[in-house]
Amino acid sequence: MSQPTCPNDTLLIHSTMALSDETRELIANAIRPHVLRISSRAGATNLTPADADPDAHAAHVLFGQPHPDDILASPKLRLVQISSAGYTRYDSDAFRRALRSRGVPLCTASGVYDDPCAQHALALMLSAARQLPQAFTLQVRRTWDTPAVRRHSVLLTGQTILLVGYGAIARRLAELLKPFGANVLGVRREIRGDENIQMIRSHEIDRVLPTADQVVNMLPASDSTRRYFDAARLERLKPGAVFINIGRGDTVDQDALIRLLNSGRLAGAYLDVASPEPLPAEHPLWTAPNCFITPHTAGGRQDEQRHLAEHLVENVRRLTSGEPLLNRVI
Amino acid sequence: MSQPTCPNDTLLIHSTMALSDETRELIANAIRPHVLRISSRAGATNLTPADADPDAHAAHVLFGQPHPDDILASPKLRLVQISSAGYTRYDSDAFRRALRSRGVPLCTASGVYDDPCAQHALALMLSAARQLPQAFTLQVRRTWDTPAVRRHSVLLTGQTILLVGYGAIARRLAELLKPFGANVLGVRREIRGDENIQMIRSHEIDRVLPTADQVVNMLPASDSTRRYFDAARLERLKPGAVFINIGRGDTVDQDALIRLLNSGRLAGAYLDVASPEPLPAEHPLWTAPNCFITPHTAGGRQDEQRHLAEHLVENVRRLTSGEPLLNRVI
Repeated sequence: MSQPTCPNDTLLIHSTMALSDETRELIANAIRPHVLRISSRAGATNLTPADADPDAHAAHVLFGQPHPDDILASPKLRLVQISSAGYTRYDSDAFRRALRSRGVPLCTASGVYDDPCAQHALALMLSAARQLPQAFTLQVRRTWDTPAVRRHSVLLTGQTILLVGYGAIARRLAELLKPFGANVLGVRREIRGDENIQMIRSHEIDRVLPTADQVVNMLPASDSTRRYFDAARLERLKPGAVFINIGRGDTVDQDALIRLLNSGRLAGAYLDVASPEPLPAEHPLWTAPNCFITPHTAGGRQDEQRHLAEHLVENVRRLTSGEPLLNRVI
Repeated sequence: MSQPTCPNDTLLIHSTMALSDETRELIANAIRPHVLRISSRAGATNLTPADADPDAHAAHVLFGQPHPDDILASPKLRLVQISSAGYTRYDSDAFRRALRSRGVPLCTASGVYDDPCAQHALALMLSAARQLPQAFTLQVRRTWDTPAVRRHSVLLTGQTILLVGYGAIARRLAELLKPFGANVLGVRREIRGDENIQMIRSHEIDRVLPTADQVVNMLPASDSTRRYFDAARLERLKPGAVFINIGRGDTVDQDALIRLLNSGRLAGAYLDVASPEPLPAEHPLWTAPNCFITPHTAGGRQDEQRHLAEHLVENVRRLTSGEPLLNRVI
């Protein structure tokens, strides 16, 4: 039997994120009899951190990027549903303890972003293998130079590919990589045994780094991942390797990466994240040789609001029926 | 039992293609006691058409891009092994009849190029979905504009993808696409029933073109495929669709494609082939809006010579043991 529920309770869902009329209607219809309210100070995007807002304190469910103080000050709160995959703003021991003691769960929306991130990572990997930026640069010069591009074109097939930071994105990326016949290896702090690829422990990475053709960094920001790819580790990359970062900029010693790119030892670096973001115009990463940048767009999807809405609706349904919540992190 | 073979016969394999010392040794060791000879006039690449060369006439096996007259003038010939996937130079009724009447098979090396072509096509498809050229253009301007790129970022998941010209490349591409959960549809003149995706007949394409998010053209050059994508057909593409060509430039009305790109109706065209090749510097395709060009590099692979050598060795083995030949077209 599931936990006892209160079907007659009407929940107030308070969104700190602005929603299109279409999304608002989708949510309102799906959660009836519960009620959706958009904050009068709602932020423009799913990533806009909300300022403190006393209106939030009446909510049973907070959706978006609510201010941590509001979360702690809302007495009726039963669920915090974050509108992003990352949740650094809420990731402190004190905050965790406070929510846990009240039995209030906090869920991310990582399920909305796993698939775009995995497809983006594969786009960057194939782009490197098939020399797309090099070809597009030739196009600007109106130069049809087949041998120049073919000379460096490779397949993912047979390559050794290292997925660093094994979670839902890496799991999906491993699925996408399966038909290629590559040698895909995952790296994780603690191996759980339910991973879909061969795994090694985080501290063993230095042994396999010199064998990897492509290294995909998916590490989140935290004290333990800060500069995980430090100078010594980056220097273990094999000559001609490709380094991809769709995790967080802080996890890499960017100065060391730039030195490595300048030396010509790497075939390329593909970065969707940097430190700081936005990357200032004068930053040397913009023009480092064979460095290719997408501006934190790995999680992007045109249908993002609809998927965030469906994710919220599903977790409200699970909350009221006592089922396990999706992407619960506290 | 296989056909009777003559183990004491020594075959002379004449290559019109220049080979590295490593490749030459690989072949020579693998075919012993048969003998490999490289033409004194050997062409620089696997695609260089050989001029007429009387030295070829003693060969039992011709490898490379032999002159059609030499093929017809070689009395001991038992196999022609072409060093490319395309074989337009040998694709006439008269030539086919001549070879057939002598029982001389002609094989392409398409097996060497299927996988790179399929991976290249997927690289272009993901590049379009994830807005990579747009991001790289922002990088040149040192502009970190996340919303500009995210706004148009999509997934292949749920898209309708049309593979036009179903052969070994499309079969491989369909395998690579499987984990994405896209709606993949193949188009072919005659459906055989052994295809790995849902198929429609070539003449039915106009019905489904307006529903396709991405159209991948893999048609070879021939009288029947010339301007298969004419103006009327291109205009059936839905607004925002992506058109990819890794087949042959002649199969598309390029003027109509440029008009369509100029009108902004398409999200993009990704072309690995053009007419003519090399594309002259003054050609309007180079600068058509949202047109992205790779210079006939879809089949490129760094390990190309080794794979061509292994393909030749395998077909010589099959020839001498009476087994069916790989990629036989005549």
